[in-house]
Parts: sequence; structure tokens; C-alpha cells
Amino acid sequence: MKIPELQAILRKKKLSAAVFVSLEHGDVHMDYFGCYSGGGLLCVPARKKPFIITHELEFERAKTSGLRVFLWPRKKRLFEFLSTKIRGAIGMDLPSTSTPIFIAAKKKFKVKDIHEEVLKIRSAKTKEELRKIKRACVIADEILDSCVNQFKKFKTEKDVATFLELETIGRGCSLAFPVIVASEKNASMPHYEPRNVKLNKGFCVLDFGVKFDGYCSDITRTIYLGKPSPKEIALYKLVQGAQDAAFLEISKTKSCKKIHLAACKALGKENRYFIHSLGHGFGLEVHEYPGLSSLSPHKIEEGMTFTIEPGIYLPKKLGIRIEADYVLLKGEAVRLTKQTGLISV
Amino acid sequence: MKIPELQAILRKKKLSAAVFVSLEHGDVHMDYFGCYSGGGLLCVPARKKPFIITHELEFERAKTSGLRVFLWPRKKRLFEFLSTKIRGAIGMDLPSTSTPIFIAAKKKFKVKDIHEEVLKIRSAKTKEELRKIKRACVIADEILDSCVNQFKKFKTEKDVATFLELETIGRGCSLAFPVIVASEKNASMPHYEPRNVKLNKGFCVLDFGVKFDGYCSDITRTIYLGKPSPKEIALYKLVQGAQDAAFLEISKTKSCKKIHLAACKALGKENRYFIHSLGHGFGLEVHEYPGLSSLSPHKIEEGMTFTIEPGIYLPKKLGIRIEADYVLLKGEAVRLTKQTGLISV
Repeated sequence: MKIPELQAILRKKKLSAAVFVSLEHGDVHMDYFGCYSGGGLLCVPARKKPFIITHELEFERAKTSGLRVFLWPRKKRLFEFLSTKIRGAIGMDLPSTSTPIFIAAKKKFKVKDIHEEVLKIRSAKTKEELRKIKRACVIADEILDSCVNQFKKFKTEKDVATFLELETIGRGCSLAFPVIVASEKNASMPHYEPRNVKLNKGFCVLDFGVKFDGYCSDITRTIYLGKPSPKEIALYKLVQGAQDAAFLEISKTKSCKKIHLAACKALGKENRYFIHSLGHGFGLEVHEYPGLSSLSPHKIEEGMTFTIEPGIYLPKKLGIRIEADYVLLKGEAVRLTKQTGLISV
Repeated sequence: MKIPELQAILRKKKLSAAVFVSLEHGDVHMDYFGCYSGGGLLCVPARKKPFIITHELEFERAKTSGLRVFLWPRKKRLFEFLSTKIRGAIGMDLPSTSTPIFIAAKKKFKVKDIHEEVLKIRSAKTKEELRKIKRACVIADEILDSCVNQFKKFKTEKDVATFLELETIGRGCSLAFPVIVASEKNASMPHYEPRNVKLNKGFCVLDFGVKFDGYCSDITRTIYLGKPSPKEIALYKLVQGAQDAAFLEISKTKSCKKIHLAACKALGKENRYFIHSLGHGFGLEVHEYPGLSSLSPHKIEEGMTFTIEPGIYLPKKLGIRIEADYVLLKGEAVRLTKQTGLISV
């Protein structure tokens, strides 16, 4: 996908090729630009057709990509072999490149980081990608609805997580990331992992998303077990207000930093308990370009999909996070997931 | 776990600390040496207690590890902050370190790769680890039995994969790796991903493992849909014979290279269709130290868990792989998973 866009950037940066390597598991860029999710090396030359280099183990599978595939000769080092195909400086996505691969590449090529450029290309979704993302959003919302509706039958955090996982697989999807089910004080840890512990009265954070045909959704709902106090309802509404403020801000600015700050402002003095960034792009991966944070230089552009997920976390007490998914269409943020309000079960 | 073993290596290599970093997802070494699976930096000094550095988002969670946790000051670079705690050369596992982290570390420290050393420490399992691995093996075998027993009800590769996934989660486990269900000619691709395609007559490769309490199993069974011809039965027995030959070889040698070559020899002239290495260690990760291949310098040592998985792959025709899990106890390979023989369904 979007090979011409990548090649235009390579030519502008005077790079002879973009090179993505994953020796074992496959790589999301290889999948995106090369329609191949196995191990090997994908080379996208600035002016020629992309090709794959891989070992015998993956050779047949790599050919299903439709690209030309070269068999990596056992006795030749990978970048030495690549240097028989291309010359000049190459671009790599350094954060997703392991150190030994980078060191090996540097021995044969001048290497430039094209992380931002590659992530930016992937951030604006095509119609077909958006169709898959919308479906991933609808499925995750439906599964969450069903989960919340029968919440009384769950005894432990792990029960809830297992329900969400089984429903996901039953619908032919996979998890976009490990489910978070964090009851009461456990919810003060944003990346808490669900355990075999009793669900306690109070707020319970459910952070969940599915992968449909390769594309993710990412939703957080905070529900309440029992009857929330007026103060707790006010806290929830404060977080909801921060999400609304960020959403409205997008009509005025596309600066990710300003959108983040609008949410911070809405949180008032509780902002000191907002300990992460406001959101992130998502697509093939659950965390993509752009980043919505106080330091982000990014701007939201047409077709980008992103989350808005303000939260407040009181150590050893509680956590509330509300996360929805959006896409920017014709300059406006369009919500892809439900807004439920505080549901008590 | 095994902090003293790691510290002994650090002192021997004149390193002041081992440093493991994962800014987002957590890292298997951090989990193993620091009992912490979130984002941040784990430092294991050669002569002092390990500590974690992390940002606000993970601070509360990191404290549950029981280690001392420092809050990473927003305005300081990570390794600049680390250099206020330790000095001298540090060891890192470079293959699991992303390039920007390595470059940042190099600005403040002399960095040495301790990949082999760290993986070797993790390869010999403790009794408690072995208990979990055995359980992961039994559960995966039981699920595979149940799958094969009702195989007639599956129509597509994806049906089979979904069954295996649902059973895994239903038993409180997770997948050790994405399931492989490869029917007939698709099985000629060892890392094939199951699709929504009809199960054809012929060999069908099922490569599947579960993660129980963090520890993996990894089993491949090849079954036959329909009635195999005498030639096909002979091919299967050839692969089974290669597995047996490798198993027997372990009584004579612990050299991974020699064990691999014993399997190659048993395959006779069909060895040209054996296109991957014979096996690998497994534990917290599905692929660990040691590697059993024609180039491996590793030796199998007491307590190491590993797979033996010979296979033959005829492009566009068929694939057969038989994989079992073993542990070396008192110098002998002990099988942890079932040997089923060729089952036709």
C-alpha cells in the first residue's frame, strides 16, 4: 500500500531505498508496504519495484505477496547480499529495528531514520482501511455492551477478561492488545493486568479492543459496581468533560499539543492526576502516529484515526479513564465508538 | 529470579550493571529478573540491589515488583538520569534493544552485548518454572486431543484455529504464538497463517502451544484427512524417525549441532526438503536459548527445555512437521508432550 508516497519521500530525502527487516516475526511496515507478514527483509527502492529477501523457511510464503523474492544465500550476510541489489543511502524505521540489524546495515550502507515519515504515511487511512477500523470499533462496542449487561455474573477481574477474549475470538477477531480489567484501587494503575481477584465495589476500568482483518479498535469504558456517590459521579463527569473538550477543540485546531492541553484545562485541579498522554493514532497497530500529548509536534490530518482517552488516577484509591475512537473527516472529528455515560451495575 | 547468577557474570565481564529497557510494552528480561512486566528501565547493578526507573504512568504498577522505583524526571533524558545512579560499562541484550535506545545508552555508557549470557541464564529452568512448563504441555496436548477427536466438524482452517483459541482461553491460558493450521499444500509453508479456506484431503499441520502462568508449550502434530497412501505413511514415518534419531542422539552428545545433524541423516535424501532448524529452547518465550541447528555452537545443559521438530516441505504439494517438547534431566532428554503416530480423520 502507498508505495508511491513512500518512494516520493525517499527521492526527496535522496535515499536509494527504504529497508524493513524482521528476522523472525514479521513487521507491520512489511505487511503494509509489502503485503507480507513473515520474516525477512523488504526493500522498497526509490525508483524500482519493491522486493523481498528471505531464507528458505519463508521463501514459499513470501512469494504469496506477489513481490519478487530473492533467496538469502546461507553463506552471505544479509546486507552484503542486499548491497548486490541496491547502492547508496537507505532509510530504516529505527525504533522498530533491533540494534544488531542496525549495526549490520551500517557496515554496508549509510542509514537514515525514516520513522516519522513512514508512520505518517500509515496514519492517514484509505477507505478500505477505514471500513475495517469501523468494523473493529462496532464489534468491540457490541462485545463491551454484552459484557456490561451481564456484569453481575462475573466474580473476578479474570472472569471479565476471559469473557471479552472468548467473545472476540468467537467473532473471528483477535485481541488488539491484552485486555485491562481493573477494579477499584487497581484502576489507579493505567496498564494494570487483570488478576484472579474479586471485583470490588467502586469504579472498574475496562480497556479493550479487537483486531478485525488486521485493524484495531481501542476503547475504554469505566463502569461503577454499586451505587456511586455524588462526588464520584462528579469525578466521572469531569473526565467525560475533558474528552468532550478535546473533541470540541478539534474544530478549532489540529495541533495535538493544543488538543491535549484543552483536556488538561477541563480537568481543572484534578489534572495533576492525569498521568499519561491524551491519545494516539491507531490502525494496524494499537499505538500509531499521531501522538496527542503535551510535547507532541504532530497535527491531526484528514483520514487519521486516533483515540481521545483522558483519565484520572488516585494512587491506591481509584482510576477513571474514558476512551473513544475517532477519525478526522473533512476537518471534523467523527466519533467511531459509543458514548455510554456512567453505567452502574 | 537468578539475580546472583546475573551479577556473577557482570563482575566477571567487569560490567557495572545489566540494563533492560522497554518504553512501552514491558520486556521478558525485566519480567524474569525484576518481576515487572511494564514499561521502563530495569537496572541490575553488579553488586547492589536491582531498581526500576519509570514514568508516572507506570510508577504505581512498578512498585508492585517489590523493587525500588525511581520516577524518571520529565526533563531529564533516561540514560542521563541513570548515570546519576551508576557508572562504568553496562551490559544490554542488544537483539531485544531498539536502535534509538542503544544510541541513547552509548552517549552515556560503554555498552556491551550480554545477549548470550542472559539467554543462557534463562534457559536452565528452576523447579517452579518446570512445573509451569509441564502444565502448559499437558494443557496443549489435551486441547489438541480434543481438536483431533472432533476434527470432522471443522470445515475450514480458520474453524480449527478458532477452536484451539477458544479452548485455550476457556482454560485460563493464552496462546503461546499464533496458531498454525495448514491444510494440504498450504503446509509446505512452515509459518503459514490459517485462512478461511476449506480443509483439503491430505496432511494437515497443527502447530499450537499455550502459555500457562507465563510459560509456553509448543507442539506440532501432523494429521491426515482421508486415507493416506503407503508412500505418504512412509514419509510421515521418515519425519518421525528423524525426531527419534535426534532424541536418541542426546544420550550420546549434548552438542546442538550434532543433534540437528542426526535428524538430517535420518531424513536421508529427503533432507533437502528440511528447510529449518531442528528445534529451540522455550520458556517465558516460545523461542529461547539453545538453538538446535547446523550452525549452532550451543550445548543442551541440565534443566533446559527445548523442542525437536523435524519437517519436510514439498513446495505446492505438502508439509509434514512433528514437534515435541523436552527437558534435559540427569543428562537425558525427557519428553513432556505426547507422541501420537499418524492419525487419520
